[in-house]
Amino acid sequence: MKQVPIGVSARHIHLSAEHLEALFGSSYDLRKLKDLSQPGQFAAVETVRVEGPKGFYDHVRILGPVRSQTQLEISMSDSKALGLECPVRQSGDLEGSPGFKLIGPSGELEVKEGAIVAARHIHFNTKEAEQWGIRNQQLLRVRVNGKRPLIFEEVMAKVSDRYALDMHIDTDEANAAGIEGVCSGEILDW
Amino acid sequence: MKQVPIGVSARHIHLSAEHLEALFGSSYDLRKLKDLSQPGQFAAVETVRVEGPKGFYDHVRILGPVRSQTQLEISMSDSKALGLECPVRQSGDLEGSPGFKLIGPSGELEVKEGAIVAARHIHFNTKEAEQWGIRNQQLLRVRVNGKRPLIFEEVMAKVSDRYALDMHIDTDEANAAGIEGVCSGEILDW
Repeated sequence: MKQVPIGVSARHIHLSAEHLEALFGSSYDLRKLKDLSQPGQFAAVETVRVEGPKGFYDHVRILGPVRSQTQLEISMSDSKALGLECPVRQSGDLEGSPGFKLIGPSGELEVKEGAIVAARHIHFNTKEAEQWGIRNQQLLRVRVNGKRPLIFEEVMAKVSDRYALDMHIDTDEANAAGIEGVCSGEILDW
Repeated sequence: MKQVPIGVSARHIHLSAEHLEALFGSSYDLRKLKDLSQPGQFAAVETVRVEGPKGFYDHVRILGPVRSQTQLEISMSDSKALGLECPVRQSGDLEGSPGFKLIGPSGELEVKEGAIVAARHIHFNTKEAEQWGIRNQQLLRVRVNGKRPLIFEEVMAKVSDRYALDMHIDTDEANAAGIEGVCSGEILDW
């Protein structure tokens, strides 16, 4: 049986170095709040206010380190509350996604594009993926045994030496599955 | 292939006659906005404000006709935003569910219990259920072919002469499945 731990991604944002400076001041460095499941990635102490045409969220967590492009990851529920029509995309695939406004302690700015609903995926370390016979970008079915059991289809495998085994879903998906606290999924076929 | 239409339930409330009077005035009758899929059930013109310990929603739609007990049906996302710990329950099973505050144009009141996350279910007319070999309260698996395909497990069959074929899920479940507009599901086994 191929069990994977499940991490639920709450709304969060990755900032470019340029946008970090615009919001927090020049040469500002993010402070680490806690490490995340993927090596080198961390939740920062800092948060930012995100505004859309219909609503806003205060205290949206910034994840570090900085990236080449600013990327806002929200659930479809959040997306509707903000008034954004976000596509369901894998991380980094931002072309044509809607823009939004960011407000930090030292400035504010309009981001031209970068708001997505993250498509569900599993991070595999290359060794595990080889042992299990799973290829990069393969689509998998995963059964989640929460209070509202369901099977997610088209869960994308992401394989890299830099990754640690973890399945990522958003809060809508976690709520649909009735997940609370620590949870795991079972890969059904591949 | 056993196809069922899918209806997405947004947050809504059913009121007792007593609570309707307290909120809208004595002898008040709900006005019909539109019929729902189940015969006799309707969305009312009237809405009400719902408050929990952490948040509120204005304009929560009232569904008619009045019922023996007031019942608030919200998604788990809504439940967290309001600060309520709602159980996942079938309609009418309200014992021990949290209370909330209601504010209408003519009054306000504290409801002692009645806030639930509705468990997914399918309404079957008795004739269809017999033809398909489906029993009342049976748990089914249903595949939904939205933008984010998935299989819901433990979907409860509700069979009655008064019902019309329709599967009901909440907005978190619809978002997890990437459903937009008209959608249907396929019953996989029974």
